Amino acid sequence: MNNEYFFSRRTIRKYADREVSERLIEEITAAAAKAPTTGNMQLYSVIETRNDDMRRELASLHFNQPAATGAPVMLTVCADLYRFNRWCEVSGADVGFDNFLSFIYAISDALIFTQQIVTIAEMKGLGTCYLGTVLSNTPEISKLLKLPKGVIPVACLSLGWPAEEGEETERLEVGSILHRETYPELSDEDIVNVYKVKEDFAPNAKFISENGKENLAQVFAEVRYPRSQQEGGSEKFLAFLRENSLI
Amino acid sequence: MNNEYFFSRRTIRKYADREVSERLIEEITAAAAKAPTTGNMQLYSVIETRNDDMRRELASLHFNQPAATGAPVMLTVCADLYRFNRWCEVSGADVGFDNFLSFIYAISDALIFTQQIVTIAEMKGLGTCYLGTVLSNTPEISKLLKLPKGVIPVACLSLGWPAEEGEETERLEVGSILHRETYPELSDEDIVNVYKVKEDFAPNAKFISENGKENLAQVFAEVRYPRSQQEGGSEKFLAFLRENSLI
Repeated sequence: MNNEYFFSRRTIRKYADREVSERLIEEITAAAAKAPTTGNMQLYSVIETRNDDMRRELASLHFNQPAATGAPVMLTVCADLYRFNRWCEVSGADVGFDNFLSFIYAISDALIFTQQIVTIAEMKGLGTCYLGTVLSNTPEISKLLKLPKGVIPVACLSLGWPAEEGEETERLEVGSILHRETYPELSDEDIVNVYKVKEDFAPNAKFISENGKENLAQVFAEVRYPRSQQEGGSEKFLAFLRENSLI
Repeated sequence: MNNEYFFSRRTIRKYADREVSERLIEEITAAAAKAPTTGNMQLYSVIETRNDDMRRELASLHFNQPAATGAPVMLTVCADLYRFNRWCEVSGADVGFDNFLSFIYAISDALIFTQQIVTIAEMKGLGTCYLGTVLSNTPEISKLLKLPKGVIPVACLSLGWPAEEGEETERLEVGSILHRETYPELSDEDIVNVYKVKEDFAPNAKFISENGKENLAQVFAEVRYPRSQQEGGSEKFLAFLRENSLI
């Protein structure tokens, strides 16, 4: 095994007009379900969207980003405590999975499973893209997909056969994310050095000038993920967890 | 690409007395960091534990389970909002990443990254095991690893060269986790059928008799993850998020 695929993989946002069969999605999902899961409870479900009307409606809840509007298939992966709790109920067991720790188990299971889908799909030549926007519209997506109480959409993938090469992206140096024994103390200068690889990455320069900002951090904090949006999104997501009795 | 590795992989909890080099962990981590991440922000860090004293202390915070006490290396993956917020601060940007939505971004990034480490490590022949116990002792683990405010341990892996084959485990049928267009309505009988594969899996029978329970759901809900433990764990985890200004 060499690392070639892992180092060279790219996110794909444009898809060819070519079918991705139900059978292929089923095969990928079945293989991905062998990924680790908390206590082998598999606290997740995945909803496959390929019907035209449903794709249009789901894409609009992802702000009609091209990766969503142009994808033949979208997979919405959910933290699912409903199915497990129903099983406990019909088995006459005292169910204690309606709380925050259980949600953390379920979101962890769901993300591990989602990433395994990504790896398997990409190794088969499919292109994939995570739609982080799923977290902005959880109640609306839940309603569209008819999710019962206790099922929270936490990840969404668009999938298709690639119609682009995908953009090269930079990553922090491994020494900036991997620490030996304890978390290091970082001076302001250290922090600047950690993110220098981003500031130096040529395609990032255009984001700074396009947005009239002084540096890349300001683009992230003030344009892409402004405080008001993060705080409003937090309230909305927490309210949805409360409605689902998970907090 | 065939699915063989993905279908046949097993969790490994016993490790050989053979070194796992720092260089190998570095290589795996660097490759895993090419996995998708929210807005390419890489809101995670990983702490590598291999020093004898640190391994002993960390293992005790994982209740001295054999996968922890016998592992040459443990990797604690953290949702890390600290590093990114520091960068925004030193760049004079208004930082809005001290809230719950940002934590959800970071835990998602961390789990995607962790699962990529698992896949790469296992494809290189290493054995791995997720220690879900990390979620039970977040404040204590944070103190041991000297994590700054805004860094939350959310996944822990033990790694080593395998000294066992690993146990075969069952999974739900793909039709029970993959749904077309909407979440299906499930009758009590449907639910029983979904989990029949678990009830029928021979090794599970001994858990039922050993624990004097009537069925497997009762073992999960009343012995392995009892309500009091889940509720207490929820309070502890939420309190830690509050201390870190993430909720």
